[in-house]
Amino acid sequence: MNKQQLVAQIKAKRSFLCVGLDTDLKKIPEHLLGEDDPIFAFNKAIIDATAPYCVAYKPNLAFYECFGLKGWQAFEKTIAYLRSHYPEQFIIADAKRGDIGNTSAMYARSFFEEMDVDALTVAPYMGEDSVTPFLGYADKWVVLLALTSNAGSADFQLTKNTDGQALFEQVLTRSQAWADDSRMMYVVGATQGERFADVRKLVPNHFLLVPGVGAQGGSLEAVCRYGMNADCGLLVNSSRGIIYASKGEDFATVAAAKAAELRDQMDTLLKQAGL
Amino acid sequence: MNKQQLVAQIKAKRSFLCVGLDTDLKKIPEHLLGEDDPIFAFNKAIIDATAPYCVAYKPNLAFYECFGLKGWQAFEKTIAYLRSHYPEQFIIADAKRGDIGNTSAMYARSFFEEMDVDALTVAPYMGEDSVTPFLGYADKWVVLLALTSNAGSADFQLTKNTDGQALFEQVLTRSQAWADDSRMMYVVGATQGERFADVRKLVPNHFLLVPGVGAQGGSLEAVCRYGMNADCGLLVNSSRGIIYASKGEDFATVAAAKAAELRDQMDTLLKQAGL
Repeated sequence: MNKQQLVAQIKAKRSFLCVGLDTDLKKIPEHLLGEDDPIFAFNKAIIDATAPYCVAYKPNLAFYECFGLKGWQAFEKTIAYLRSHYPEQFIIADAKRGDIGNTSAMYARSFFEEMDVDALTVAPYMGEDSVTPFLGYADKWVVLLALTSNAGSADFQLTKNTDGQALFEQVLTRSQAWADDSRMMYVVGATQGERFADVRKLVPNHFLLVPGVGAQGGSLEAVCRYGMNADCGLLVNSSRGIIYASKGEDFATVAAAKAAELRDQMDTLLKQAGL
Repeated sequence: MNKQQLVAQIKAKRSFLCVGLDTDLKKIPEHLLGEDDPIFAFNKAIIDATAPYCVAYKPNLAFYECFGLKGWQAFEKTIAYLRSHYPEQFIIADAKRGDIGNTSAMYARSFFEEMDVDALTVAPYMGEDSVTPFLGYADKWVVLLALTSNAGSADFQLTKNTDGQALFEQVLTRSQAWADDSRMMYVVGATQGERFADVRKLVPNHFLLVPGVGAQGGSLEAVCRYGMNADCGLLVNSSRGIIYASKGEDFATVAAAKAAELRDQMDTLLKQAGL
């Protein structure tokens, strides 16, 4: 999916919500555990319930790998289900990959050719030649970690270099030589509040993938105040706050209600921004 | 496996060689492609041929994920084969993971409980709480990326902060508060030459996992001159230089010869260091 199509989806649906499919067998409703493939059964129900209110889904690979073969199968079935039933959804594989060139090329082939997701999260620590192999695919995106939502983001990402630039700012600056805003997004955690203004100084036009609203405590209003641009430029992710809102048989209905609530807030925020 | 056992293996086998199982269907001998599971068939033959000459194996997950379910199955079979036939080998899953705490915990469960590897490579960009979930397992190791072997390592890892410390030095320094040398190793690329001396100033006692000898051009002598310590303290990886040394039916024999050659060089270097 290209940027124009993504922006059109956001405007049509009045939502920039990304639903995180961090599906954990220990947290899904018990009545699903008897299914042939409980992870996929859960995802399918969540997707069918929330698709009207979101523009993207983001399965985190850790939650699938954890169950080995079965988890991997559930992941592939989830992608295939989204592709065939909801082709208008933007799919982000949250895998935080990044390795030497020939290895990153293998990951790129895996996620962009075999599985046909739209975007992959990538870690910047290993530099340009670990990222560029992901950039050779039309309408496929790298979502580069910049300023993450966790407490540990302060350990290295905020360290300033001799030019007074924090590491996340160096990542934002240098990576723009590798691809423009038609192929690259950045992860900036909702918990980072006012630092969104620093981010927007460096990448005014890029989309930002924003985790950390909900369970992690980030504020949607603050993210929009400092982070929204003329295209919206935000994909705000919620995982636990939606998919585990109920552990009962009504889990999908409750997830839909939570997603609809966020969509309504997003609609208001888009209107306030004249979008 | 604990540090004492690893050092004992190195001394007994006169080798600190790690064989990288970066198994690519496009590069393995054609006569194996008719096998039920060509990736596993290749790995099994390589392992049986090279085990006398090495102390560790390092499958890189990218090469398995790339083939989806089948690749994952081949990975699990490879680990199980090593565990049952060569329990003295140290197994490193090269996955370069690292995510927010609850997600890293899922990865840790996957690699250390489900698959029972000895060590996992982890990326430091997200800081302490992305790494510590991997540290709660007895005799299991985190191999943290510090100074990698690729050209892109210069993009961020060498950037100096206002205290004059390069990012890789900050990673080496700060991470020592998270675990000591009984649970943490560091990746330092063989291509980094004299920078091994800077690394050893900060982590004199830790094991270093050293990729980049062979196809990537690093020198084994330079690595040992600057990087070896009283326990040896090195696991030097070779992947392509061993496993793809021949594409013919003799691939395993040629791989064994290449591994034996490296073992002989390592024996000499260990002797020179009085080990």
